[in-house]
Amino acid sequence: MLQPLMNVLKTKRIILASGSPRRKQILTNIGLKFEIESSSFEENLDKSLFPEPPQYAVENAFQKTMEVARRLSSDPNPPDLLIGADTIVTMDGVIYEKPRDEEDAFNMLSRFSGRQHTVYTGLVLATPESNPGPNGDKFRVSKFYESTDVIMAQMTPELIRQYIATGEPMDKAGGYGIQGLGGTLVAGIKGDYFNVMGFPLHRFAKELVQIYESKK
Amino acid sequence: MLQPLMNVLKTKRIILASGSPRRKQILTNIGLKFEIESSSFEENLDKSLFPEPPQYAVENAFQKTMEVARRLSSDPNPPDLLIGADTIVTMDGVIYEKPRDEEDAFNMLSRFSGRQHTVYTGLVLATPESNPGPNGDKFRVSKFYESTDVIMAQMTPELIRQYIATGEPMDKAGGYGIQGLGGTLVAGIKGDYFNVMGFPLHRFAKELVQIYESKK
Repeated sequence: MLQPLMNVLKTKRIILASGSPRRKQILTNIGLKFEIESSSFEENLDKSLFPEPPQYAVENAFQKTMEVARRLSSDPNPPDLLIGADTIVTMDGVIYEKPRDEEDAFNMLSRFSGRQHTVYTGLVLATPESNPGPNGDKFRVSKFYESTDVIMAQMTPELIRQYIATGEPMDKAGGYGIQGLGGTLVAGIKGDYFNVMGFPLHRFAKELVQIYESKK
Repeated sequence: MLQPLMNVLKTKRIILASGSPRRKQILTNIGLKFEIESSSFEENLDKSLFPEPPQYAVENAFQKTMEVARRLSSDPNPPDLLIGADTIVTMDGVIYEKPRDEEDAFNMLSRFSGRQHTVYTGLVLATPESNPGPNGDKFRVSKFYESTDVIMAQMTPELIRQYIATGEPMDKAGGYGIQGLGGTLVAGIKGDYFNVMGFPLHRFAKELVQIYESKK
């Protein structure tokens, strides 16, 4: 999807506003050159203010991206593209993020056992505005999200405890990593696999092509 | 899924009868210790002999596994578990394997563009028979397959040519790699992502647990 654009992207300063090793890996795999600037945005938005869960993920991604954008705006070589993302898991109207502790991970995974949940990743792409508007907007911002349904295997409490003991669940939204040991626990998905890892790769590529097409 | 079994598996000599780097990666990621013995089975079965495409993939996987099993059967330390797999892509009743050349890859990907196809991986697990039958069967063999639907993005001929020029399609069934650049071309999947990479991880874990449960 991105190949026709790769020669253009090579000349750009691209910033991934996320410290997630999975996002880094996905973007490295497709051959993108970028720097990482983890955002210091504290994820403490009031979930109840958002009518739907994905809007919460998009707003988190937006705030993370803008924090990094502001920080780098006075840079002598400001970025040409900033990428921000936030991933949440939802089931029965409840939003699940990274587990607070092992007990929290156990509760999440016990609820997911044998059932389907949804992973949302909010994605924000920010490029410098070539014609800043009257309110001085410096960035053109694209916001969107992608959802993927995940069907988990039936898991016994013993299996969940043993999985938690591997340490894999603790830094991951929903308490599992589909790309690792957690992959054996996933019976199937509907949608973009990379979205479950934390980055909606196909949608990202599609939106990026549109952004650079419209700048021509 | 496999954690309760991991202590048992650590003591076993496990052979992956496949030279695929993707299969190696998937099994390494879940912490399995195994050796690789690529099969020399020539994949030249007559596809028309199989009523359904997945049966062809299962038979390929079976022949690959048995070739390696025979080769290692006189080993002083014979294997405790052999794993064989074969992956094919089907659409409109046609079976697609690795592209013969770049033109073949171009034709495959052009057909897949904007449409849904199905990936089948046949998987074979062979363990030594503790009570060999009257016909002297040395192995207990489990055969199964897993299917995953893949929806490809609309791709222009230019995009397909540029993707082929990266070299990624040539050694992969269906002419694309979902875990690499090809991931940007996949709009979504239904089923096990790892199955599209060439190894149905969840099903493998489930069947392996059953095999060792029944040996208790």
